[in-house]
Amino acid sequence: MDGSTTTQTVGIVTPRIAKFTEPVALKCGAVIDEYELVYEAYGTLNRERSNAVLVCHALNASHHAAGVYADDPTDVGWWDNMIGPGKPVDTNRFFVIGVNNLGGCHGSTGPKSINPRTGKPWGGQFPVVTVEDWVATQARLADHLGIRQFAAVMGGSLGAMQALTWTIKYPERLRHALVIACTPSLSAQNIAFNEVARQAIITDPDFHGGDYYAHGTTPKRGLRVARMVGHITYLSDDEMASKFGRQLKYGKLAYSFDTEFEIESYLRYQGNKFAEYFDANTYLRITKVLDYFDPAFEHGGDLVRALAPAKASFLVISFTTDWRFSPERSREIVTALLDNRCDVTYAEIEAPHGHDAFLLDDVRYHRLVTAYFDRIGAETAADAGTGILHHGSKAAA
Amino acid sequence: MDGSTTTQTVGIVTPRIAKFTEPVALKCGAVIDEYELVYEAYGTLNRERSNAVLVCHALNASHHAAGVYADDPTDVGWWDNMIGPGKPVDTNRFFVIGVNNLGGCHGSTGPKSINPRTGKPWGGQFPVVTVEDWVATQARLADHLGIRQFAAVMGGSLGAMQALTWTIKYPERLRHALVIACTPSLSAQNIAFNEVARQAIITDPDFHGGDYYAHGTTPKRGLRVARMVGHITYLSDDEMASKFGRQLKYGKLAYSFDTEFEIESYLRYQGNKFAEYFDANTYLRITKVLDYFDPAFEHGGDLVRALAPAKASFLVISFTTDWRFSPERSREIVTALLDNRCDVTYAEIEAPHGHDAFLLDDVRYHRLVTAYFDRIGAETAADAGTGILHHGSKAAA
Repeated sequence: MDGSTTTQTVGIVTPRIAKFTEPVALKCGAVIDEYELVYEAYGTLNRERSNAVLVCHALNASHHAAGVYADDPTDVGWWDNMIGPGKPVDTNRFFVIGVNNLGGCHGSTGPKSINPRTGKPWGGQFPVVTVEDWVATQARLADHLGIRQFAAVMGGSLGAMQALTWTIKYPERLRHALVIACTPSLSAQNIAFNEVARQAIITDPDFHGGDYYAHGTTPKRGLRVARMVGHITYLSDDEMASKFGRQLKYGKLAYSFDTEFEIESYLRYQGNKFAEYFDANTYLRITKVLDYFDPAFEHGGDLVRALAPAKASFLVISFTTDWRFSPERSREIVTALLDNRCDVTYAEIEAPHGHDAFLLDDVRYHRLVTAYFDRIGAETAADAGTGILHHGSKAAA
Repeated sequence: MDGSTTTQTVGIVTPRIAKFTEPVALKCGAVIDEYELVYEAYGTLNRERSNAVLVCHALNASHHAAGVYADDPTDVGWWDNMIGPGKPVDTNRFFVIGVNNLGGCHGSTGPKSINPRTGKPWGGQFPVVTVEDWVATQARLADHLGIRQFAAVMGGSLGAMQALTWTIKYPERLRHALVIACTPSLSAQNIAFNEVARQAIITDPDFHGGDYYAHGTTPKRGLRVARMVGHITYLSDDEMASKFGRQLKYGKLAYSFDTEFEIESYLRYQGNKFAEYFDANTYLRITKVLDYFDPAFEHGGDLVRALAPAKASFLVISFTTDWRFSPERSREIVTALLDNRCDVTYAEIEAPHGHDAFLLDDVRYHRLVTAYFDRIGAETAADAGTGILHHGSKAAA
């Protein structure tokens, strides 16, 4: 806890595939007859099966949350600084699961997959999914792994929306939720940025209504612009200023449309990289997942009522410079949880990095998560076999 | 001043064209042999030619700042709420000039124009222009009109950058500068948004390296996305929230990629409208004009030294919710002007509308401009014939 513990990587990891043959009815009305979810697991599930932690990924990440692959030691998991032996989510004590969500492009069934009804890739026909759908399919994965109740479900950003939804849909199936850099719903501005990204992709002539696989094309131009605009919203204005400012790429002005400023170079690089590996249909759907997330919607806008089923204990964390999902929005969640007499710990971390801070190696942030999991550890030892849930006390926020 | 004055429109206006045959050497190194500027004028130039006000346009506006056209009474000038008889810039007292800048697409020489050296449209060969180039060509227009010294040069956003540059490049040629919703230079984030817009246009297959006129195409898809992303930055988050929030377009969710939320509908509409009338090559260049604006750059980043030549009196105005060019950036200008012992009036208007507030009909904002021009009026009567410049006193900021 004081940082003296030696931390290590979980080492070489191997993705596994879980196949589900029971149809899943999605919120949009579509039914997927069968599907696969690719996942990874780190650490050891204890005899009581009480030490499992589900890590939910955000926009462009995947099941590969920690460790590296044998055939590519440079492909480090996206939350490797958070998960591992001696790390905040300590794999010496917890059995940690990362899963690629339905509709993804990293191995789980998604738009690139073959639709068994047609024998062709789903493409534009792959349904619009939601956070609720993801959580429902994650619950089936938990069943598949024999996990009745998670010690914790956690995530940042879109991942946090999944953790929050777990507490509403399956209140008995998790003891703790870590809701990091979250919002109770996207603002008009958030949706607006997503819509720009979608329109860039959809109007790319190589998109072909989402059936670009059949045309042998990829809407890379659209994906590139989509990623560039997204990236701006992940960083704070200040972080961009200190990282790039008005630094010139080549020392002097060229007065041309080539790269003039460092920030242009950075964005183009990020856009190009993303367009090479990410599937456009998945990106479109994930932006919709974000737009649709709004647990209060079905309760007349009342977030308190929406969160009424929640029984978990909560760690809610926001970052001061996050202008995408600002601390103000996290406080809405905290207030609604407290109104439900939930056990909530809330921290606003002063971090310069904007929304992306949840992914970064901030010592106060990581110590906080470490301390929180230490507490889970104690309780696990005491309560694991009894099924006693730790909730209902109105803790300090 | 108390709002009791009857305000009217300037009525039907007619654009005029000024032709310049003396070559202009641009900052980028290119030379334009001859060019035309289209402009409009409202009110009457007095005998002393001392009551002229130059209105500089921002990103997508033009010379058409006030009034309507005989053949289209719905085409109202972009700053008609500011300029007219009895309005803040009172055409009963001032001779107000609006001019379309070089490189524009509303009648002045620009990428759509024929390059006399080739007999074909300039297209992608039209040079990159800067605020300094614009101000230099505006000064020639002033010569053409026999105006030695403006009573005021004014503008909002990019228009304000021109007003500020006038005070540096031609300090003797204006008595007042109205610098509204300005910044001393674009931030990395500002440049990043511009770069997204440019990349959307440049990578549109219909762009053809800027020579789309020859191909009979228009990069409408790119322009549309560019305008959408720009539009987000003109409005405040709060304004978007109160105007659109999460309102659904058709009352219920469709779970499709059609318009789901009102904000999507609004952005698509704005994007489509813009793509119909605006020239992509002009848009690209105007975003570069913004990026390059940085008067301190040639003075080792010292804005105080950059503004040292200024002799004008200043009215600097910012808007509290403007996150594009925040009040903080206007205060940098004010501080540098005060360090030069300039006469500065500064106001931070509490307005919910974000950057676009400078275009809107806010009563406090307009009363402030009215009061400022009343002061110009008094001074004009006293000093017009004497050439006495009103500067050097360190006024309250």
